[in-house]
Amino acid sequence: MKRMKFVLAPDSFKESMTAKEVCKAMEAGLKVVFPDAEFIHVPMADGGEGTVQSLIDATDGEIYHQTVTGPLGTPVDAQFGIIWSQQTAVIEMASASGIQFTTKETKNPLTATTFGTGELIKACLDKGINKIILGIGGSATNDGGAGMAAALGVRFLDKNGLPLPAGGGALGSLCKIDLDGIDPRLADVEFLVASDVTNPLCGDTGASKTFGPQKGATPETVAILDSALAHYADVIDVQLGRKVKDVPGAGAAGGLGAGLMAFTHCKMARGIDIVTQYSGLSEKLVGADYCFTGEGGIDFQTKFGKTPYGVAQAAKAQGVPVIALAGYIGEGVSELYSEGIDAIFGIVPGAENIDALLKNGCSNVERTCENIGRLLKIARA
Amino acid sequence: MKRMKFVLAPDSFKESMTAKEVCKAMEAGLKVVFPDAEFIHVPMADGGEGTVQSLIDATDGEIYHQTVTGPLGTPVDAQFGIIWSQQTAVIEMASASGIQFTTKETKNPLTATTFGTGELIKACLDKGINKIILGIGGSATNDGGAGMAAALGVRFLDKNGLPLPAGGGALGSLCKIDLDGIDPRLADVEFLVASDVTNPLCGDTGASKTFGPQKGATPETVAILDSALAHYADVIDVQLGRKVKDVPGAGAAGGLGAGLMAFTHCKMARGIDIVTQYSGLSEKLVGADYCFTGEGGIDFQTKFGKTPYGVAQAAKAQGVPVIALAGYIGEGVSELYSEGIDAIFGIVPGAENIDALLKNGCSNVERTCENIGRLLKIARA
Repeated sequence: MKRMKFVLAPDSFKESMTAKEVCKAMEAGLKVVFPDAEFIHVPMADGGEGTVQSLIDATDGEIYHQTVTGPLGTPVDAQFGIIWSQQTAVIEMASASGIQFTTKETKNPLTATTFGTGELIKACLDKGINKIILGIGGSATNDGGAGMAAALGVRFLDKNGLPLPAGGGALGSLCKIDLDGIDPRLADVEFLVASDVTNPLCGDTGASKTFGPQKGATPETVAILDSALAHYADVIDVQLGRKVKDVPGAGAAGGLGAGLMAFTHCKMARGIDIVTQYSGLSEKLVGADYCFTGEGGIDFQTKFGKTPYGVAQAAKAQGVPVIALAGYIGEGVSELYSEGIDAIFGIVPGAENIDALLKNGCSNVERTCENIGRLLKIARA
Repeated sequence: MKRMKFVLAPDSFKESMTAKEVCKAMEAGLKVVFPDAEFIHVPMADGGEGTVQSLIDATDGEIYHQTVTGPLGTPVDAQFGIIWSQQTAVIEMASASGIQFTTKETKNPLTATTFGTGELIKACLDKGINKIILGIGGSATNDGGAGMAAALGVRFLDKNGLPLPAGGGALGSLCKIDLDGIDPRLADVEFLVASDVTNPLCGDTGASKTFGPQKGATPETVAILDSALAHYADVIDVQLGRKVKDVPGAGAAGGLGAGLMAFTHCKMARGIDIVTQYSGLSEKLVGADYCFTGEGGIDFQTKFGKTPYGVAQAAKAQGVPVIALAGYIGEGVSELYSEGIDAIFGIVPGAENIDALLKNGCSNVERTCENIGRLLKIARA
């Protein structure tokens, strides 16, 4: 009999298991039934939280820790990864400038800065890297990426030639962008920006109005920020010759999208597509009998670029059936069957509280996979 | 292609769905994937709660309601079923004499009576039935079945020739059992007693000591009841020539087992075996591709005679794979794989509270079965 081949390509189950841990639990369960099978682990992510860990795990890359300036101006411990086999760095901007570094009391989108994200980019340049995958979700900031650029040597000056204070609020006073000190290595770096957000920088669907409130903006500060970012984009247009205001994705991560467009060579893509490409998922799927994926929660939104959807697209292209696991199965999952997800199973054993469920994630994945394996075996017999 | 045949043989999911409702939900889910398949519904039970409903549903029998004397002496609405195709009645003693008719304040095993159970038996005799399946679990009583016998015309007299009051406590004063008025039809009736309890009537593992406390007995009343039942058994031995005290199962349902042995023709059997036989499960399994079963909870105890275990035994004998569903998957389910249950799946979609889970049982069974069906389909492809 041909040796069975399983590709295990789950996302992390947030607050419960990393994608790598899910892979291990899946294998442990399936191995009971198919002890001689081949198991290929491809820890996945969709550009959001866990993307660095998953891509590094999937490619045997390396994680580096770096103390940088947090969104509130205080030091935070951030990390980035390097896929050495592809000379590519992976950064989650939230690792340096994320909303998790703020509280209800301290969050302030007027002053929060992406400076730390720029420091992480600099650390990657110091490693000799010239390709950076940058996941930009979960930010505490609304500074148009000016902080990021400042960390890389760009100076934002007011009408007196003095540097602006940190944060999006100050950008309303921007007079001059001074590129003299910009890190020259940036010119040779290609950014691949993982973002599912297509909002423009300003206006009704812009960064400030859409995402400002969850970062602590009141209606008044939303207005200040929107007007400041509009002015910032105008200065970029006039002085740098780049039109960023209305580009889809410019409004991602408090306008970090616009900042990247202004100061770097960047391409935006859906996170799941980037992860699929860099993890080598499609090649690994060749000849597989079944592909397993999964995520903490699966519902109708999964088809808007979440990991199980992306994995299903890749597997479908190879004719490999996809089985998805979830800690929570929400509304509308039947819409996913036509998208290449062949079957979806919950891992929860019963009415247990969320703490127990998060704690027992691995054993629940393992038990569920063993039973799926058992079912596959009797059906194939 | 051969038409697929599914046998659906679940127990009820307590407080959520009857076994019949589970069958319907299972079919609804599987039918999405296998629209042309044959679905055989065999609602199951294990002799406990739901046995009448399931057997009547499985055999197209009829349910009858009857007002009888409850365990506290007040009227209660009870029911019994008749499998007309087999001229067999089905009674759950708890329907007339169950613990659910008492409260913490009113429960009293000294006086609680099985009189209502006897009235249900009488109602079956009035229908011309001569075979009765009697499930004896969940009783509020500890009267050795004397109440049941009294309802059928047996008189229990004290030393003055006066009838004893109801309840096990009074049996210590029993002097004479008068069979003159016993319902003559009883002589031609065969009882099949569904009980998983093998306790004797008296002593350390007897009815009073083992089950008395949960019916409200204090250490003192346990002693009174144990001694009263021992005396009762001695009188039965001397006056009727039947030795019931140490027979396994005599202690079931507060000694109702002993009463049945003393006053009727009865055979005791495991509930699941009786239900399997009378539901015609084995015949219905012939030629089936898959058998689905399930119960509210499945764990290592399932193999001690619960429905999924019994169904698995029957299916195993026919070589039909068994897939089990559960609202709660507990410890030790892997012990069930070698007992004929091929795979076990939870139906719970995530961390929801118990009320929502009980309410959404049908849609959760349906979704789970659809996905199992989808998995079977891709595996068979």
